[in-house]
Amino acid sequence: MFMLFFAPHTCALATHIAFLDAGLEAGADYTLRRVDFAHLEQRSPEYLAVNPKGRVPALATPRGILTETPAMLAFVAQSFPDAGLAPLADPFAFAELQAFNSFICSSLHVAHAHRMRGHRWVDENDHDAILAMQKKVPESVGACYDLIETGMLKGPWVMGEAYSIADPYLFTLAQWLEQDGVDPARIPRVMDHRARMAERPNVMTAIAEEFA
Amino acid sequence: MFMLFFAPHTCALATHIAFLDAGLEAGADYTLRRVDFAHLEQRSPEYLAVNPKGRVPALATPRGILTETPAMLAFVAQSFPDAGLAPLADPFAFAELQAFNSFICSSLHVAHAHRMRGHRWVDENDHDAILAMQKKVPESVGACYDLIETGMLKGPWVMGEAYSIADPYLFTLAQWLEQDGVDPARIPRVMDHRARMAERPNVMTAIAEEFA
Repeated sequence: MFMLFFAPHTCALATHIAFLDAGLEAGADYTLRRVDFAHLEQRSPEYLAVNPKGRVPALATPRGILTETPAMLAFVAQSFPDAGLAPLADPFAFAELQAFNSFICSSLHVAHAHRMRGHRWVDENDHDAILAMQKKVPESVGACYDLIETGMLKGPWVMGEAYSIADPYLFTLAQWLEQDGVDPARIPRVMDHRARMAERPNVMTAIAEEFA
Repeated sequence: MFMLFFAPHTCALATHIAFLDAGLEAGADYTLRRVDFAHLEQRSPEYLAVNPKGRVPALATPRGILTETPAMLAFVAQSFPDAGLAPLADPFAFAELQAFNSFICSSLHVAHAHRMRGHRWVDENDHDAILAMQKKVPESVGACYDLIETGMLKGPWVMGEAYSIADPYLFTLAQWLEQDGVDPARIPRVMDHRARMAERPNVMTAIAEEFA
């Protein structure tokens, strides 16, 4: 039994969808544990004992805690190989998939985070610098989506014909692109991917479970 | 034959060391292709055809180009399993290793990049905001090293008794910690790891090859 520490509107959704794609069921195979960001629970001693980084997601497993979405997604794919969520036995194809997820994590998500979490990288009281970061987000996030639109997203799924753990991760970040100031008309292939993902029963189930 | 596109003083060093750890030899198994940052070669049409992200490292393989250090490191480990550079058959242990590398990439390296590459996240002409970012680096990078020092670095190697692809990655970033304003006295275990890495022949060879 896994326990996924999550908060709504975070990248925890990617691993949650991957659970369902791997055939896991809420209650039987995993439970959700909501971390209350409104009351800064992620900074509480109890939660820091789970994840010293003070962020979500974190995944409690029988072996211990895992963090970092790219690692958690590969863990799901490798733990449930019959689901076919990653080309596990092909080092090059697996590396291409991991490179996509690493880019989402370290470039796209980081660019996005400068809109709401600028205090990570400047003094939280420096309002001018916080604002300067926010102003750049449409450009920096947009540049990431341009790379995805024009090459990284092979289509119809991220890695081509085969659906993989990259798909829920891109979908999760793409929830935020309008608020990040990116014009959807600029990235029709990303928007098509998002629309097709949103119609998948597992995606709808994951979202419903998080907002229940 | 692989070709590693690199620049000195970048995280390309991690993959370069991993090549040597996997038993590869310069000239026979890989060649190095230096990208001239002083002349902005990383933004040239020729290089952007290799890596549209305009960054190093990039790895040309017989199957195509790979990017993103965490993905490239796992690729080396998986392509040369006899070298024992990752617990490939243990999903949990592999995920712990990948979580470490993902943290290096998306938290530590990103925090570091705010010292020299602040223009990624604010207008390049906004000198006050650029300076505000630089001022925060000792704190933000230091916080990452605190997490590594107090838990993530198991010792003697990152993942414990077994040397892995996490070790050259931590070593590479740790080259920059003094310039990032982090007091070495605060992180004795990280400094001990760095010193032991620096004595390894493969590390000395990689550095010598990059500065040849």
